[in-house]
Amino acid sequence: MRHLIDLDAMPMNELDELLHFAGRIMDKPEYYFDSCHGRLMATLFYEPSTRTQMSFQAAMLKLGGRVIGFDNPSNTSVSKGESLKDTIRVVSNYTDIITVRHPLEGSAKASAMFSRVPVINAGDGGHLHPTQTLTDLFTLQKTKGTLKGMTIGFCGDLRNGRTVHSLIKALIKYKTNRFVLISTENLMLPSYIQRAIERAGCEYTCCNNLAEALPELDVLYMTRIQKERFASPEEYEAQKGVYVLNREKLKNAKYGLKVLHPLPRVDEIALDVDDDPAAVYFDQTEYGMYVRMALILNMLDGSRKFIDPQRESNSKKGCTNPRCITISEAYLPHLLSRADGKIVCEFCDHEQQ
Amino acid sequence: MRHLIDLDAMPMNELDELLHFAGRIMDKPEYYFDSCHGRLMATLFYEPSTRTQMSFQAAMLKLGGRVIGFDNPSNTSVSKGESLKDTIRVVSNYTDIITVRHPLEGSAKASAMFSRVPVINAGDGGHLHPTQTLTDLFTLQKTKGTLKGMTIGFCGDLRNGRTVHSLIKALIKYKTNRFVLISTENLMLPSYIQRAIERAGCEYTCCNNLAEALPELDVLYMTRIQKERFASPEEYEAQKGVYVLNREKLKNAKYGLKVLHPLPRVDEIALDVDDDPAAVYFDQTEYGMYVRMALILNMLDGSRKFIDPQRESNSKKGCTNPRCITISEAYLPHLLSRADGKIVCEFCDHEQQ
Amino acid sequence: MRHLIDLDAMPMNELDELLHFAGRIMDKPEYYFDSCHGRLMATLFYEPSTRTQMSFQAAMLKLGGRVIGFDNPSNTSVSKGESLKDTIRVVSNYTDIITVRHPLEGSAKASAMFSRVPVINAGDGGHLHPTQTLTDLFTLQKTKGTLKGMTIGFCGDLRNGRTVHSLIKALIKYKTNRFVLISTENLMLPSYIQRAIERAGCEYTCCNNLAEALPELDVLYMTRIQKERFASPEEYEAQKGVYVLNREKLKNAKYGLKVLHPLPRVDEIALDVDDDPAAVYFDQTEYGMYVRMALILNMLDGSRKFIDPQRESNSKKGCTNPRCITISEAYLPHLLSRADGKIVCEFCDHEQQ
Repeated sequence: MRHLIDLDAMPMNELDELLHFAGRIMDKPEYYFDSCHGRLMATLFYEPSTRTQMSFQAAMLKLGGRVIGFDNPSNTSVSKGESLKDTIRVVSNYTDIITVRHPLEGSAKASAMFSRVPVINAGDGGHLHPTQTLTDLFTLQKTKGTLKGMTIGFCGDLRNGRTVHSLIKALIKYKTNRFVLISTENLMLPSYIQRAIERAGCEYTCCNNLAEALPELDVLYMTRIQKERFASPEEYEAQKGVYVLNREKLKNAKYGLKVLHPLPRVDEIALDVDDDPAAVYFDQTEYGMYVRMALILNMLDGSRKFIDPQRESNSKKGCTNPRCITISEAYLPHLLSRADGKIVCEFCDHEQQ
Repeated sequence: MRHLIDLDAMPMNELDELLHFAGRIMDKPEYYFDSCHGRLMATLFYEPSTRTQMSFQAAMLKLGGRVIGFDNPSNTSVSKGESLKDTIRVVSNYTDIITVRHPLEGSAKASAMFSRVPVINAGDGGHLHPTQTLTDLFTLQKTKGTLKGMTIGFCGDLRNGRTVHSLIKALIKYKTNRFVLISTENLMLPSYIQRAIERAGCEYTCCNNLAEALPELDVLYMTRIQKERFASPEEYEAQKGVYVLNREKLKNAKYGLKVLHPLPRVDEIALDVDDDPAAVYFDQTEYGMYVRMALILNMLDGSRKFIDPQRESNSKKGCTNPRCITISEAYLPHLLSRADGKIVCEFCDHEQQ
Repeated sequence: MRHLIDLDAMPMNELDELLHFAGRIMDKPEYYFDSCHGRLMATLFYEPSTRTQMSFQAAMLKLGGRVIGFDNPSNTSVSKGESLKDTIRVVSNYTDIITVRHPLEGSAKASAMFSRVPVINAGDGGHLHPTQTLTDLFTLQKTKGTLKGMTIGFCGDLRNGRTVHSLIKALIKYKTNRFVLISTENLMLPSYIQRAIERAGCEYTCCNNLAEALPELDVLYMTRIQKERFASPEEYEAQKGVYVLNREKLKNAKYGLKVLHPLPRVDEIALDVDDDPAAVYFDQTEYGMYVRMALILNMLDGSRKFIDPQRESNSKKGCTNPRCITISEAYLPHLLSRADGKIVCEFCDHEQQ
């Protein structure tokens, strides 16, 4: 049995096969209508995310499977004080596969420890969201025809955007890509990801003006900068237009540019861009459904396992990350020695002080 | 591709065929068990309406299709500031047909503009609710055997009841019907609908006492008068019993009378009426399910379209109706010249000042 | 047509057949994948209970049926003042079977009165919850191989725990069982159930220490004692550990002990018990799904009935139990003379003063 918690852990050949399989399903969805007949998926959404939940539900239902779940933690046994462990053990008795979304980091990994069926991470706090990255990769492959040799711009809040971090970490595996990082000074990509780009032998440049960067881009990945992320209200007023894409700016774009966005967008892409051939952010959601169909089919192999005897918590205190699942679920073991000798949390990957 | 936004726009021969088809499904529902195999419906309920949502869900599921959706706007991407347009474009990538319910007038028409799949209006504010009218018509046809030549009483709040307005507009097309409008003075049917009845060559009389009107009615369509709609608390106390149907009043009813109600009822129909053969308001909900099954099957022809390039908004200011969808979704074009030279909103039909 | 309101009303041979049938389904679930093809279940949850709702949904979906329903009363027509009667009559027009959970006692019985399809009680306030008891019985049969001749401990709040009351009432029918009642003085099993044990010819002993009782138990049924149920905060501090099961206490358990719990558990069972072979409380939820599958299949015989003309309420005042459904639904008839001459409520079984 295999879970999908962190896309980084998926070998590249498997990733390529998965994207290829998604393409086959997209070509002939009717061949797969009944491939999950009799199978049941749980969508456990401890925080609401209608978009993601509907995408998973649509994927499973189009495969002929069925779905149960919740989207409102206040209605669940959780509100009676039940631990994540107990909920997962029970739900994995009812279902064949579980998707879990949770506001705490590391929660998906914790879920996988106690599940008798495969677990898909549908977003664990600000930590990981691997099916969004799969969606982005599949969109690139379908609209650009390749995942290699491109100049890819990332625009917006690059410091806090987990989808940006994950997509860059995936794209550097395809060596020949080049990155243009478009943001304000204090919303720049974290330095550890900049180092990762360098180590992978890829190039990148930084830039604080979308219009200037556009002419060299094959792909533009837009994200939103929340008003409160700017250094000051004055800077917000001065800068905001610089990070908004509109039809005027598109005039100088390279031929064949594709614009992606994880959605929902607010106003970082003007409405007049929506019908430009460059805009693929709505199609992106459809690609996301097909790649989730491929993922579900790959993970459902019908086998059930019995849970390994529980390892005891190996630390008296929780992780030093206040947003880590080990804070609320005290029974979890959580400290690991990393190769470099640092102590890290097994669930949220946070380096302990 | 066709949407159902306003029943008025449906040609009469199509309406008749639809009601006939609903009858065929009701006779042999098992023939249609798998007719939507592999098809997916979205129920996007921006305001809760369990009754209507369950009716659509039951209809789709009984056809062998599947359903995704939401009923709680606070859980949706909408709460993150997403426009109706974006939500519809995304959801129409996942599904084959969309039903939308929204508190703002004109929202269903706006949804249809941006959907790649057929849209059914499941109620847009106080504006239109065409599947309720289909339900009412089908109920009349099944319980009276005809849609013509009847004396039909409408009782309650005729000024604000959109189901009453829509049903009258549909019934006047069948020329020979006669209407008895039973309400207080200030809850009388709006004069523009009274004019429409006259123009269609139908008769109507007004009346403020249900008991007096009953002996001449073939059909009684009951609705609720909310307490706060009466001119004063004193008038409420004096009048309330006049607009309540009970077994006592039924004694003077014409043989074969049928009583309809859009439900939920509160106390405008006494419980002792429920088991009288005249009471068809519970059966009405079942008829509603079959007519929705017919509608879904008719609309699902499997074709997808690409969205027309967006028309730009043709006005700097929104519609003068504060409950119109163009107020919250500023990108919508919305002003039209009507045949009589008046300027009206394209979405809520409101006459501009 | 048959409803399941109170397990006590089910003849023993039918109960045995149902458990046997659940076992057959569990052995070969794939044989039953399409046995409810084309059938629709409603889950009407007037109070949230995700665990129970997911169990019913999983059961119906695994049989090839479909599910509609709600879990949030504030989103329903109920919030517009609709009576339970009207909701049930409408929903029974859409569906083939209804499960209802409601905070008021007697509500399931009231629902059954007005439903055209079979009704399953999924919990009516603190009154009855028959499918939990079926789950408990099936778990015992699967894990102990019998329902007879065992020494069964019940630990925790025995006064208020409806699952405890129901399970004891079921187990005393299998004559040769013996009960050990482990609780504080003021959370002891109600005397009328103690009397029922005696009348059935079964033995029981009372005890206030779990560790002392363990060595003689074949089965331990754990429940939670809420902190506020103790006589005083001091007593809580002094006593709480006495009613918690942990690995240490298990060392003295009889070979083959099985521990059940209706879940969710909070801290009355320590986490270190979870992986002991005695712990069957997680498996119990899976058994619950299979017994619900058997129940649904048994109850769905496809016939619809027309509602009997309504009996009028036979009392001017409601039941004296303030948590009875007849308080909010005043149209219900509700007073019965019992064999012993006492007047009881027909819905919540409360003895009138």
